[in-house]
Amino acid sequence: MATPIELLDPLLDLVLILVAAKLAGEAATRLGQPAVLGELLVGIALGPSLLNLVARTEIVVFLAELGAIVLLFEVGLESDLSELKKAGRQGAAVAAVGIIAPFLAGWAFALAFVEEGLVALFIGATLTATSIGITARVLSDLGRLNLRESQIVLAAAIFDDIVGLILLSILVTLASAGVVSVFAILETVVLAIAFVVGSIIIGTRGWMRILPLVRNMRVRGVLLVFAFSLALALAYGAALIGLATIIGAFAAGLIFSETEDLEHIERDVKPLADVLVPIFFVSMGTLVNVSTFLDPVVLAMAAALTGIALATKAVAGYAVSGASLRRPVIGAGMIPRGEVGIIFAGFGLTLGVIQEDLYSAILVMVVLTTLVAPPLLKHLLRNVPSESPVSKEPSESAPGSE
Amino acid sequence: MATPIELLDPLLDLVLILVAAKLAGEAATRLGQPAVLGELLVGIALGPSLLNLVARTEIVVFLAELGAIVLLFEVGLESDLSELKKAGRQGAAVAAVGIIAPFLAGWAFALAFVEEGLVALFIGATLTATSIGITARVLSDLGRLNLRESQIVLAAAIFDDIVGLILLSILVTLASAGVVSVFAILETVVLAIAFVVGSIIIGTRGWMRILPLVRNMRVRGVLLVFAFSLALALAYGAALIGLATIIGAFAAGLIFSETEDLEHIERDVKPLADVLVPIFFVSMGTLVNVSTFLDPVVLAMAAALTGIALATKAVAGYAVSGASLRRPVIGAGMIPRGEVGIIFAGFGLTLGVIQEDLYSAILVMVVLTTLVAPPLLKHLLRNVPSESPVSKEPSESAPGSE
Repeated sequence: MATPIELLDPLLDLVLILVAAKLAGEAATRLGQPAVLGELLVGIALGPSLLNLVARTEIVVFLAELGAIVLLFEVGLESDLSELKKAGRQGAAVAAVGIIAPFLAGWAFALAFVEEGLVALFIGATLTATSIGITARVLSDLGRLNLRESQIVLAAAIFDDIVGLILLSILVTLASAGVVSVFAILETVVLAIAFVVGSIIIGTRGWMRILPLVRNMRVRGVLLVFAFSLALALAYGAALIGLATIIGAFAAGLIFSETEDLEHIERDVKPLADVLVPIFFVSMGTLVNVSTFLDPVVLAMAAALTGIALATKAVAGYAVSGASLRRPVIGAGMIPRGEVGIIFAGFGLTLGVIQEDLYSAILVMVVLTTLVAPPLLKHLLRNVPSESPVSKEPSESAPGSE
Repeated sequence: MATPIELLDPLLDLVLILVAAKLAGEAATRLGQPAVLGELLVGIALGPSLLNLVARTEIVVFLAELGAIVLLFEVGLESDLSELKKAGRQGAAVAAVGIIAPFLAGWAFALAFVEEGLVALFIGATLTATSIGITARVLSDLGRLNLRESQIVLAAAIFDDIVGLILLSILVTLASAGVVSVFAILETVVLAIAFVVGSIIIGTRGWMRILPLVRNMRVRGVLLVFAFSLALALAYGAALIGLATIIGAFAAGLIFSETEDLEHIERDVKPLADVLVPIFFVSMGTLVNVSTFLDPVVLAMAAALTGIALATKAVAGYAVSGASLRRPVIGAGMIPRGEVGIIFAGFGLTLGVIQEDLYSAILVMVVLTTLVAPPLLKHLLRNVPSESPVSKEPSESAPGSE
């Protein structure tokens, strides 16, 4: 309430982060790139290794944590599970190859040349990510969201998110335990699946039960606050049993993604995300030590990881069956790591699994895969009519064609 | 990002505060009372003197501070300055009496019976508040917003907010200096007026200049983030020159209240306020030490302050000229102190001007004045037709009638 100076500094941090993030996000957008890249780069610039203008105070770190939770809550809300009905089988095949290939390649590479054990597992896991947000935006901008290939990529990206969050939870558990054991991995897999499935079943039923009461409430903002509170509570619950907070936020998003209130909640969560999510990406940027980019080992590592990242997701495009499908398009759609890759890298660094040189190399890989995907998709789709005749009304025609 | 336990506890605090606030706010609404009363009471219950479930951590205190900023930003946005054109002269007269009478009475009472110097000034200042939010809501619920008396109350409440924030800034300055001097008071008055007027003039012109650029920006949420950042920046600026943070937030709201983007900004700020403002009120509740209510001196003080608060605002109703005006309605409309009174009390406590016994007495006064106003207004307006013929189209007919 009052104005002790230690409460004012985070106020100034907040203004600086928000304004810089939006300007950088806009610059990235103008260059045909996702806003998140601009936010990340401005975070690097504002961070301690360059301008040193934004301190990672307890408050900034907490707001960034809220940003990651809101981000994954939104991803959950936007995970249209009916996409899985449309292209679930093909999507699952693409996701399986698109997870296993980069994981094994990254793990083997790391084991052979660089590190061992937990670090190698972490590098493999980080390479598995696919950013549904970036691919969906590019396909939508190109007017190709209804293309059969696009539906497969979106379905695969949903699977990829779920498996990725489970992988991340495994790494959180292993990092806490300090050792890699098959039993611990199996335990976490079971725990994570049980948590997500249990949250969705109990959450959906519980929500249905209290919904008539909530609808009757007259106090303002009650739907948003209850939905947001559920995301926070599940994030807390996930962390309590040793999983990643964001898996809880994602599960909360899935709970509401199938309800009638989805549109209302999405509209009200958006302003919260507009403010909090840029804080997360800028904060992830401030973790980068720029001097690591001068290290040839870091640059070689970044190049190798990027090569593996591109090749293994391209391979995933060939997991589909069906003569007429454009496999390179599907592979290209899976390439961008985007925000999911950044979240992985951030967890790795704050858990102490990776050090700042590897963090930098991974961020370069994330940035390059995210940069390359939009022009690549544009190029591959240059001869495809913008309203594809394959499935103009996806929810009607698609299930039959599978 | 990761999940050290000290970052998880504020997550749980947040869930508890948000859910409890909405349930209590709903209960208050059901009892025909403003939600803010429920939020305040549940804060008292959750606070250290009763259940001890919510700790006033750095993060909770900062989120509460953001809540106060968003609240005053919203009040500024909703301060329809055209109300001043409709009923400015009459409103100014009511505001003048409604500020001077409670201030002098409270000051004299405090000097004579209880404390001296700064504390007495503070008690006087706290009594001057009028909650535009609560009165406007009650009049709107009764369908009487277009009544001439209602327009006068709303205009008076806007003046009251501006003068109240200046008074609060004076007290912040005096509390920092530790002495009461006429020079310091005059300096703060000039500074506060110059700050608000300067912010509005420079802010409006600056905004008009960057607006074409902002409108052209494609990145999401840019209007909200820039508007919110201006509120944070002016709050910071106000504190930097020794004023209260919320005067900056209020000035930022006034800047946008006259722009074309008002509706867009109001819609996007609402979800932020839905989440942050209850944290502020609950946090103000946690500052109450319940055991002070067992002290007869506190209760006597609360009763005396409430009596002064009711009588002096009722007198303000008689400051209007015009034979047909219902003066008791105007006086009753000025009575509720609501959120403005709570903000004053919170500043007093955190600045160390008042102690927890006086804080409790002031909160009782705020609660009672806020409780009494809605039924009183309802009673006084029972024989007035709900769509008053005095000014059915206020913006057309009202200015001529003044």
